[in-house]
Amino acid sequence: MINVSGTLWPVSGRGRPPDPGLEARVHAAALELYGEVGWAGFTLDAVARRARVGKAALYTRWGSKEKLIADALVSWGAEPPQEIESASLRTNLLRMATDILDGYLEPHGLIYLRAQVESRVYPELFGQALEAFQRERIRRGRAIVLAAIERGELPPGTSPALVLDAVAGILTNHFLSTPTSQMPTLLERKDKYVQETVDFVLSAVGYRERGEDDQERAER
Amino acid sequence: MINVSGTLWPVSGRGRPPDPGLEARVHAAALELYGEVGWAGFTLDAVARRARVGKAALYTRWGSKEKLIADALVSWGAEPPQEIESASLRTNLLRMATDILDGYLEPHGLIYLRAQVESRVYPELFGQALEAFQRERIRRGRAIVLAAIERGELPPGTSPALVLDAVAGILTNHFLSTPTSQMPTLLERKDKYVQETVDFVLSAVGYRERGEDDQERAER
Repeated sequence: MINVSGTLWPVSGRGRPPDPGLEARVHAAALELYGEVGWAGFTLDAVARRARVGKAALYTRWGSKEKLIADALVSWGAEPPQEIESASLRTNLLRMATDILDGYLEPHGLIYLRAQVESRVYPELFGQALEAFQRERIRRGRAIVLAAIERGELPPGTSPALVLDAVAGILTNHFLSTPTSQMPTLLERKDKYVQETVDFVLSAVGYRERGEDDQERAER
Repeated sequence: MINVSGTLWPVSGRGRPPDPGLEARVHAAALELYGEVGWAGFTLDAVARRARVGKAALYTRWGSKEKLIADALVSWGAEPPQEIESASLRTNLLRMATDILDGYLEPHGLIYLRAQVESRVYPELFGQALEAFQRERIRRGRAIVLAAIERGELPPGTSPALVLDAVAGILTNHFLSTPTSQMPTLLERKDKYVQETVDFVLSAVGYRERGEDDQERAER
């Protein structure tokens, strides 16, 4: 078990061995609780109950809810850099868009949106954790768009930020403004909606699919 | 003072006259507190302190935090239907986009986003208030897009929802992913960003500005 934040386990004179799954369980419980109640409703005691961990262990290890949330967010966001496939921009954006929408629809889906909203109220608390989280996302997104410009799929000078904001923003807005009663319909037509969104954004930036033509040609 | 929710003030045997500004003050305090702390941190006591209103008055009138939040949200969202100007789609969308971004940048800016996030966790609590809030926004947006199709500015069959999701979504995503330290820059280039966003969306749907040409011609 890697100790993500780099701090050492407290050395205790009394003899209980450290619980090896503790950090992962606590992080999972902290993220789950945060998604449900946000910052104001978050307490170390509630996390301890949910993670089935002694309060003492939690307080010794994290000390405050600030530390625990930041730690849990950073460890959650610390995905290993993903390889970018040498597929067309459309294929890459479809994958990205599906990941985003799937992310919202999973149990932890509200954490990121909550933290984004609350970083406006408490920048010192969420700012750093969110930046770590966004860094890899932005790096990947930029690389995908710049590679497409290189291949001649997009006009030179296309703004990666605008393309990425557009895909993520349309999906986020659609998810947020879908009434809960209509979620089953959203799930049903998820793939179609992802496609519509990506094609909408691509037509805004004058996309010409080249990669796939080349690929098709190579496959023939 | 209109009693928005339609309930009567409680008739009390004891003689304090009803405070005519109470409802407005309480709504304002409730919205402010909700924007800061969300549902989990919201208490009637905190609203009473902030609105400088006796707790008894608050409890008698609203009874629970559920009722107060729903009431405050509904009264906030109950804007009178706005006239749609017979300007070009671009002019109308620029105005709408500016309203959205200004809305995020004002003190109450987080309320709507918070309520959207929390309606996923507590649909029974926020669902109705949000729908009331969105109804007028959606009605106006649809009317603007449909009028543009009518005038030949947009191809027939253009989806109003996609156009509106795109404008709102790009702005929302941009606002949420701008680090607090870079907010001054966002404010500075607000008009430019609104224009870029609207033009991006318009080019995705094959917009041809007609209204303004006609108008210019008429003005000549």
